[in-house]
Amino acid sequence: MEKFAIGLDYGTESGRVMLVRLTDGVEAAWSVVPYTHGAMDQKLPDGTPLGHDWAVQDPRDYLLVLREGVPSVLRQASVKAEQVVGIGVDFTACTMLPTLADGTPLCYVSGFSSNPHAWVKLWKHHAAQPQASRIEETAARLGDPILRPSCGKYSSEWFFSKVLQILEEAPEVYAKADRMIEAADWIVWQLTGNERRNECCAGYKDMWIKGHGYASKSFFRALHPQLENVVEEKLSTTMHPLGSSAGGLTPAMANATGLLAGTPVAVGVIDAHAAVPACGVTGPGALVMIMGTSLCHMLLGETGQYIDGVAGVVQDGILPGYWGYEAGQAAVGDLYGWYFKTFRMNPDDATTGASAIRPGGTGLVALDWWNGNRSILMNADLTGLLLGATLNTKPEEIYRALIESTAFGTYTVIKAFEKGGVPIDRLVACGGLPLKSPLVMQIFADVTNREIHLPRSLQASGLGAAIHGAVAAGAFPDFASAAAQMSGGFVRSFKPHAEAHAIYERVYAEYMVLHDMFGRAAEGPMQRLKALKLERHRN
Amino acid sequence: MEKFAIGLDYGTESGRVMLVRLTDGVEAAWSVVPYTHGAMDQKLPDGTPLGHDWAVQDPRDYLLVLREGVPSVLRQASVKAEQVVGIGVDFTACTMLPTLADGTPLCYVSGFSSNPHAWVKLWKHHAAQPQASRIEETAARLGDPILRPSCGKYSSEWFFSKVLQILEEAPEVYAKADRMIEAADWIVWQLTGNERRNECCAGYKDMWIKGHGYASKSFFRALHPQLENVVEEKLSTTMHPLGSSAGGLTPAMANATGLLAGTPVAVGVIDAHAAVPACGVTGPGALVMIMGTSLCHMLLGETGQYIDGVAGVVQDGILPGYWGYEAGQAAVGDLYGWYFKTFRMNPDDATTGASAIRPGGTGLVALDWWNGNRSILMNADLTGLLLGATLNTKPEEIYRALIESTAFGTYTVIKAFEKGGVPIDRLVACGGLPLKSPLVMQIFADVTNREIHLPRSLQASGLGAAIHGAVAAGAFPDFASAAAQMSGGFVRSFKPHAEAHAIYERVYAEYMVLHDMFGRAAEGPMQRLKALKLERHRN
Repeated sequence: MEKFAIGLDYGTESGRVMLVRLTDGVEAAWSVVPYTHGAMDQKLPDGTPLGHDWAVQDPRDYLLVLREGVPSVLRQASVKAEQVVGIGVDFTACTMLPTLADGTPLCYVSGFSSNPHAWVKLWKHHAAQPQASRIEETAARLGDPILRPSCGKYSSEWFFSKVLQILEEAPEVYAKADRMIEAADWIVWQLTGNERRNECCAGYKDMWIKGHGYASKSFFRALHPQLENVVEEKLSTTMHPLGSSAGGLTPAMANATGLLAGTPVAVGVIDAHAAVPACGVTGPGALVMIMGTSLCHMLLGETGQYIDGVAGVVQDGILPGYWGYEAGQAAVGDLYGWYFKTFRMNPDDATTGASAIRPGGTGLVALDWWNGNRSILMNADLTGLLLGATLNTKPEEIYRALIESTAFGTYTVIKAFEKGGVPIDRLVACGGLPLKSPLVMQIFADVTNREIHLPRSLQASGLGAAIHGAVAAGAFPDFASAAAQMSGGFVRSFKPHAEAHAIYERVYAEYMVLHDMFGRAAEGPMQRLKALKLERHRN
Repeated sequence: MEKFAIGLDYGTESGRVMLVRLTDGVEAAWSVVPYTHGAMDQKLPDGTPLGHDWAVQDPRDYLLVLREGVPSVLRQASVKAEQVVGIGVDFTACTMLPTLADGTPLCYVSGFSSNPHAWVKLWKHHAAQPQASRIEETAARLGDPILRPSCGKYSSEWFFSKVLQILEEAPEVYAKADRMIEAADWIVWQLTGNERRNECCAGYKDMWIKGHGYASKSFFRALHPQLENVVEEKLSTTMHPLGSSAGGLTPAMANATGLLAGTPVAVGVIDAHAAVPACGVTGPGALVMIMGTSLCHMLLGETGQYIDGVAGVVQDGILPGYWGYEAGQAAVGDLYGWYFKTFRMNPDDATTGASAIRPGGTGLVALDWWNGNRSILMNADLTGLLLGATLNTKPEEIYRALIESTAFGTYTVIKAFEKGGVPIDRLVACGGLPLKSPLVMQIFADVTNREIHLPRSLQASGLGAAIHGAVAAGAFPDFASAAAQMSGGFVRSFKPHAEAHAIYERVYAEYMVLHDMFGRAAEGPMQRLKALKLERHRN
C-alpha cells in the first residue's frame, strides 16, 4: 500500500492542498481553494470600512481549504484515508489573530464581528507602522538585545506591531482576547485541538529567541503599560521545534476532511521556510531563492552569526540543527512587471530583445530599489535608479539592466553572508519565476558566478509542508532523509560563464558605487524626493 | 513700392529662402529646397564609402537653393527684383570645405571627386575627434591662451579639428587646397565673388580671437609641422563684422536668381546667432533659447567674461557692440523624442498625463545628459540618469521628470551666466519646440522663475538672415532699429508661478546634488559604463 503525506500551503489569496507520495515526493493530486473573502483591504464582510494599509482575512476561509481541498485530493488520486501518514502546514507570516481560550476567533464572538481588529491581520497589513517604529526606537533607547537577530529592525508586518496596534486602537479586543496567535499555529490548533506554537514563526516574527525567550517584561512595559504581561496573558511560552508532531487529527476534523482521526499533524512553519527541504537543501552551502514578485533568500548555517543587513537569524528556524538565515529583495518579478507595463512591452518581446545583448553591452546600471531595499540596507524609503541612458538606449536594454540589477541585489546578499562567515557555493531557485525566464536565471548565474539548480517542484512550499508532515509522522528519521527521498533532485541547472562573470564584476563595481552612495547615506535625494512626493499628494 | 530683404537659411537637410518685408518683417513668401544629396554619412555620390562618424555634403546643393528658392519666393509674392534691397545668409557651423583659389570646391577638381576629404564636412562630422583631443591637449600642455574663450575645449565639430584631419588623412587634399573655408563664407563668396570671412564663425569655431588673431604659428606647428603657416597659406586674415556688406550680387548670380546684380549681400553668420535679432533681442538681459532637438542659449553682454562652463564667448560674435555668449544642451527635443519612442507613448497622451501632475509630485529627478552635457560641464561622455522610481511610477511621470530635467539644465546655465556677471532677467524662446508644447514652456518658466516670451517668427534664423541683409544694405542704421521694426514683437508669454518655483527649487537642489556627484568627478560610473559598452560592441 503506497503511503502519502498531505501538505497544506496557506497563501495570500488561496490555500493549496498537496497529496504527495512518500517514496518519491511526486504529487499524486493537488487542489487550490480560493479564500471566499480573499485578502480584504477595503471593508469587512459586513461592509465595515477598513483603514489605509489594512489587510485582513476571514479564518473560516482557512477551514474551507481543509473541508474542500483534502477530500478533493483523496478522491482525485483514489487514495484512502489510511494511506495518509501525516499532515504538514505552512502559512504566510506574520498572519495573526486574536482568539478566545478555546481558539474561537474573536471575529465570531458576539459584539466583535464589526470590529476590524477582531479579524485575522494578514502579513501584508501595513497599518501598524507607527507601532513598528516605536518598537525599534524603544529597543534602541533601552539598548535591549531582543532585536539583535534582525539588526535592530522590527517590521510593521510582524507580530508585536500588530498586537500593539490592537491594544492601542481596540483595547476592548485586546482585553477580550485570551490568545494572540499566528495563523499557522491556529490552523494546527484547529486540526489537533492543541495550541502548539512553532519555533519558526516565533523566531522570525514574534520577538522570541531560542534559549532566551520572549522580550522582557520591562521592554513590553516600556512599549505600553498594559503590555507588560502579554506573554503570560496572551501567548504560550512553550515552543515546538519544526518537524515535531502537534498531535493527531481530532475526530471532528477527521470527519470534515475524510482523514483518520489521530493522523499526525506537524507544527506549523512559514511558507518560505517550508520550501527549503523541498528544494533538496538540508544543510549549509546552498542559498535557496524563492523567486516571485519578490525574492526570499533562505540559507542554513552551522553557526549563528548576526550579519549586518540580514534581518532574520534564528536557531533551528528553518530546519532543526542549523541556524536559519533569511534575507530578501522587495521587488523582483514586480520590477519586471512594472517594466512590461510602463514600457508597454510584451514579456516575450522584451526577453527576446534582452537576450540578444551581451553582458556590459547596455552601458546601463540600475539600483533595484523600486520597492525599497530589504537586504542588506533594510531601508524601505530607498527608490529605483537607472544610470547610463543615451539617445541610443533601447527599451530591451533597460529591461536587461533591470534584470541585472536584481541579480546584483542577490550578489550583494551573498557577499554579506560570506563576509559574515556563512559560505554559499551554489544556488537553488524555486517559485514562479525560474521556469518563466531562463534569461533571468542565466543572468543570476553569471552575475553571482554560481550554478543555479532548479528542483523538480517549483511550488516548493506545499511539498515542504508535506515533508514536515512526513517527518512529524516518523516516516523518516529526519529532514535530510525525507528531503533526499521526496524532493526529487534537480531537473535543470544554469552554469555561470566565466567571461560573462568577469564583465559583470565590472558592472557590479559600478552598482556598488551607487549602492553605497545612495544606500549608506543617512538621507539623500531618494528619501527627500519621496517625502516631497508624499507632501505634494497630501496638500 | 514695398521693400524686401531675402534671408538664406542653410540647415542640415535643406536650405530655406525667406522673402521678408522691411516695414514689419512679415514673410511674404518662403521656399524650402531639400539638398539633393542630403547629409551623406554612408557614401559619396559615386559610391565611395565613408568612415564611421563621417558627414559630408555636396556644395552644388547649396547653389540649388539659390537657383530654385529665390525665383520661387519672388514669383510667389509677385515681388520684383528691384524691391529686394539686400540678402543675408546664415549657415550651420562649423560646416567647411577645401577649395581652389577661385573658390572651386576641391570635390569638383579632377582626381579629387572620389576623395571624401575633398567634400564639405558638415557640422556633425564627428570623425575628427582624435584631432580635437590633440588640439585640447596641446593647448593645455603649452599653456596657450587660444582656447580660453571655450574653457580649454575644442570640439571635433570645429574648424581646425577638420583641417587637421584633412592634413593627416589626405595630405594631397590639404596640399591642393588654396583655401579652407566655412560654408557660410563660401556661399557669400559665390554670391559676391568676394572671399569675406565673418567674425562670428571665426570667433566661435575657428580659433580666432578679435584683437588677437588666430592661434600662433608655434601652436599650429606643435599640432603638426605642416600646419605652421596654415593661416597664411589657406585662410584669410581679414575678418568682416556682422551686418557689413560682403559686396554686391555678381551678374552671373543675378542671372541665376532673378535678382539685380549689385544687390548687397551681408557677410555670413551662424544660424543660431542669426536668430537673436529676429527674436527682438539686441541687448543684454534676455537669454534667447533656440529649442529643437537640442537647445542653444544665446546671450548678449556689455563686457567680456570667460565663464566657467560656457564654451563660446566672442566679442561682436552675435551682434556688433556686444560680447556674444553661447551655451547649450545637447538633447532637449531629442530627449522627448527618445521618451516617446522608448515608452511607445503618443506625444499628446504623454503631455496630457504629464500636465495633470503637480511640481514635485513625481518623486523623480533626472539628469538630462542623454547626449552628454554641453553646458556647463562640457563633457560628451556623461549619460542620462533617472532617480526615484517606485512600483507606482507611471510613464507620464517619467516624461514630466525628463522635461523638468531639461529645464534644470537651462537653469544651471542661467546661474552660471549670472555667477559670471552676465545677468538674465527674461527668456525668449524660438525654434520648433515652443509652439508644440506649452507644458514644456511653462515648466521652463516655473523652474527658472523667469517669464518666457515667444516671438512672432519661431523660424527665427531665416528672418535673422534677412535682417542681416537689410542692415548690410543700409536699410537700417543698426541691428537694434532693424530688429525693432522687423522682429514683430512677442506674441505669447509664459509667466512663472511662485509656488511652483518654490517646489522646483527643492527638486533642483537634488538635481544639483546629482549634477555635482556625477558631473564634477574626473571619472565615474557614467564614463566607465560608456567605455565598457563601446568595448563590448567592438569585441
